[in-house]
Amino acid sequence: MVAEGDVSGKERLYLYDTTLRDGQQTQGVQFSTAEKLRIAAALDGLGLDHVEGGWPGANPTDSAFFDEVTGMRATLVAFGMTKRAGRSAANDEVLAGVMNAGTPSVCLVGKSHEFHVRTALGISLDENVENIRASIAHLVSQGREALFDAEHFFDGYKSDAGYALDCLRAALDAGARWIVLCDTNGGTLPDEIARIVHEVIAAGIPGARLGIHTHNDTENAVAGSLAAVLAGARQVQGTLNGLGERCGNANLTSLIPTLLLKEPYASQFQTGVSLDALEGLTKVSRMLDDILNRVPLKQAPYVGSSAFAHKAGLHASAILKDPTTYEHIDPGEVGNRRVIPMSNQAGQSNLRRRLAEAGLEVAAGDPALARILERIKARESEGYSYDTAQASFELLARDELGLATEFFEVKRYRVTVERRKNKYDKMVSLSEAVVVVKVDGEKRQSVSESMDASGMDRGPVNALWQALVKDLGQYSAVLADMGLVDFKVRITQGGTEAVTRVIIDSQDGQGRLWSTVGVSANIVDASFEALLDAVRWKLIRDAV
Amino acid sequence: MVAEGDVSGKERLYLYDTTLRDGQQTQGVQFSTAEKLRIAAALDGLGLDHVEGGWPGANPTDSAFFDEVTGMRATLVAFGMTKRAGRSAANDEVLAGVMNAGTPSVCLVGKSHEFHVRTALGISLDENVENIRASIAHLVSQGREALFDAEHFFDGYKSDAGYALDCLRAALDAGARWIVLCDTNGGTLPDEIARIVHEVIAAGIPGARLGIHTHNDTENAVAGSLAAVLAGARQVQGTLNGLGERCGNANLTSLIPTLLLKEPYASQFQTGVSLDALEGLTKVSRMLDDILNRVPLKQAPYVGSSAFAHKAGLHASAILKDPTTYEHIDPGEVGNRRVIPMSNQAGQSNLRRRLAEAGLEVAAGDPALARILERIKARESEGYSYDTAQASFELLARDELGLATEFFEVKRYRVTVERRKNKYDKMVSLSEAVVVVKVDGEKRQSVSESMDASGMDRGPVNALWQALVKDLGQYSAVLADMGLVDFKVRITQGGTEAVTRVIIDSQDGQGRLWSTVGVSANIVDASFEALLDAVRWKLIRDAV
Repeated sequence: MVAEGDVSGKERLYLYDTTLRDGQQTQGVQFSTAEKLRIAAALDGLGLDHVEGGWPGANPTDSAFFDEVTGMRATLVAFGMTKRAGRSAANDEVLAGVMNAGTPSVCLVGKSHEFHVRTALGISLDENVENIRASIAHLVSQGREALFDAEHFFDGYKSDAGYALDCLRAALDAGARWIVLCDTNGGTLPDEIARIVHEVIAAGIPGARLGIHTHNDTENAVAGSLAAVLAGARQVQGTLNGLGERCGNANLTSLIPTLLLKEPYASQFQTGVSLDALEGLTKVSRMLDDILNRVPLKQAPYVGSSAFAHKAGLHASAILKDPTTYEHIDPGEVGNRRVIPMSNQAGQSNLRRRLAEAGLEVAAGDPALARILERIKARESEGYSYDTAQASFELLARDELGLATEFFEVKRYRVTVERRKNKYDKMVSLSEAVVVVKVDGEKRQSVSESMDASGMDRGPVNALWQALVKDLGQYSAVLADMGLVDFKVRITQGGTEAVTRVIIDSQDGQGRLWSTVGVSANIVDASFEALLDAVRWKLIRDAV
Repeated sequence: MVAEGDVSGKERLYLYDTTLRDGQQTQGVQFSTAEKLRIAAALDGLGLDHVEGGWPGANPTDSAFFDEVTGMRATLVAFGMTKRAGRSAANDEVLAGVMNAGTPSVCLVGKSHEFHVRTALGISLDENVENIRASIAHLVSQGREALFDAEHFFDGYKSDAGYALDCLRAALDAGARWIVLCDTNGGTLPDEIARIVHEVIAAGIPGARLGIHTHNDTENAVAGSLAAVLAGARQVQGTLNGLGERCGNANLTSLIPTLLLKEPYASQFQTGVSLDALEGLTKVSRMLDDILNRVPLKQAPYVGSSAFAHKAGLHASAILKDPTTYEHIDPGEVGNRRVIPMSNQAGQSNLRRRLAEAGLEVAAGDPALARILERIKARESEGYSYDTAQASFELLARDELGLATEFFEVKRYRVTVERRKNKYDKMVSLSEAVVVVKVDGEKRQSVSESMDASGMDRGPVNALWQALVKDLGQYSAVLADMGLVDFKVRITQGGTEAVTRVIIDSQDGQGRLWSTVGVSANIVDASFEALLDAVRWKLIRDAV
């Protein structure tokens, strides 16, 4: 964690991420350990102060994550709950599971709403206060930084302010570094949050010890967090892309740029996120969607692909005169980019920049530019997407620029998937692919099975891939260091039909990573098209 | 429009919808006239005060909409811009096009930011003020209700408050019923909006004449609108589902329930939306997504399918005791419903609840409950997910409860995908599937192709589905009204291997919709498993 004193003279504001814990409460989201490690590294790269990794002991992947994670600059936090009544903190095995993760920081959720103490826990109000005190004291005695998550705090405060404050004081007096005010049900509006945070500070809980944790049930989670900071709270909790239970948590992807770029926050506060790191925000947001195989939300503030898209004609023409006319920030500050309808001048300059990124320098005004834009538009209406499939985009452009090379021609292919009982009466499946190509004027026929070295069936796409590269004459050697690393499938709209879009990520021994796209109503066909593009792109690079 | 005086003694707050105009600025959105009429009717049914239908003259479907719309209770508004310099309002053909729509109300956008007057219009500040005055006076002289949309008002006010207020006064003095303060670029935060609205009212523009129009570029559009209402504005503009340019407009789907159900708004204000009409909100939101062919946003506040989904085990068990423990409102108030998804974080009470939803009553403490949880956990670690695949969950539970029926046994299948040139030298693909089953002790063999009635290849999964249901003896008739409606694929982790998870949504003639899951390294195998579950679930329902 960065020191509290800061050369800028600004006040330190702390950012706490709970994507791996509360974010995993999103319906349909279940991270693997490898995915958790990847997300943690991205959060660390951004400069978050705390990364909450999960509830060790409650969930096997959470425990595995804490075992495997290393080298974090951010403070790693294990989450759990205050000890139960009728046993000591040291003898509570749920709490022991949390402590065993060995993190420098531990966050325990506990009740601060008398209704919940009675209804959900069924214990006395005093017992609950004692559970908070003893649990936090236990963390401190073990040398951990202690955070107390005051569940339902705002509802509790409105119901019985005195009791809610007693719960906070018990945690504070026991040595909690942070008291986190949670609007667990997400129903408290920003003005009410501001008023209550003011009152909590007036009641003697220092703002420098207060965190805010909101949920988006009224679409005010971001605003509620901002209101709490203005009222004096100095830690903001949230998740990437606003993942989380029900409608999600406060969206850090929106909060971070606002805190860094907007007044009064930018002048008043220093966070662990630098302006340089902020330029990686869009990438981090898209990476998370990629892990979740979700279509990134186009309208997402700051990072969405439409966030700086100017559709209205009047807006677009003003933007060309001066981008500040219709943009509240420069999209580059968050690593995003401006989008202006493809048909006009600005569309062409965007295209030239993208071609240059692929090593293709095209002069302004070249008529091929309009043809390329036209063809992309037509393909996109069929269901193709070139946002990530940069390699397929390059091949399309090369075709229009007369820079394509046909290394070989696929005459036909056939792939069979079969499932039946083997001789031990066990159901097994096997795929077999035949690919017929013409290379250097010669017809070549190859066949491959989908079984890998361990005897596992890797499926029809893998079999097709093996058969395709098996015998391409002079080219097979070039392709020897190439492999498929990921395969994404999405059902999308192609004209009026539902079609399958496949995106394949490939890599080679030289560390290159490239993405290609294929679209068809037939998933195998779509995959094969993406495979062919992947091979062609590699051959353009390496076949002389 | 409903009268301003109200028997409730509450103050009247007006709701203005611009889904059909600003909402259409969303990237990729273009409504047909028929769709506009359907949306307008839904808005009218909810009880909106104003429905802005578009810019007549600028867009053919907008003009057609105004020609065709009839029987609205809401006030219909045509949108346009203030007259241009150098001609009279009566002689401006763009303004004439707007007037020709014949709506009782007209909203004209104009500049109030000196930077834009100079940069975008290139006219003098005085000319702009005169354009506003003359345009509004023209509307009033023609007997129309006049609204002035003060574009970039907040940025303009911060840059030159005096000039921005002069623009508002020109509209007010000319007879505008509403002066709409627009945060066009979406960069103004709620506290700043509140302060400026207070200052505008203090400068003599009555709050009862002020509207607020925000955009969601910092994820604060809803909060900014609420802040403006607290500061005195009495008209709120927004769109259904937050459609709109860039990140969208203020989301009326979130604002309306907050204004009706949350304090201080609920006690202070009366809107045209009744509590009865509010129960139709979720349906209206889904209808719009349906028109746009979008997957509804699960996490959408109030109306999303996850908005009342309780995934955390602790939350789910408390909800069973008392729903107010983790719900800020009753989901029925907005026509939504509670969901308790199955996942490895859920406890036995959650499980019993979910089994009951599937018609399986299991006593508390039944040892099968622990076995079911164990098996779900094991399957989830292999890559299965039961959050949405409720039908596969039910089949798994039935197996453990001894309530499963084996209707038939699949002995083997084989599917072939082939791509080759047809007799016209065009590359075409075709899939063929053979499925061998044993039904009622009898072996049956079926074969099907993937070609649909239009001659399009629908791929191997479709071919397998056709072959599977083709001849299942007595069961084929039961399956006749069943079809596949969606197919979702993702690569996930199964143990240490990458595997493919397929989720299939099926429906039948009785309006049932159910989801099943399959997992395998082989995508065809995973699909077949999900297909088999889909068929078994249907047979349990309908085969006697």
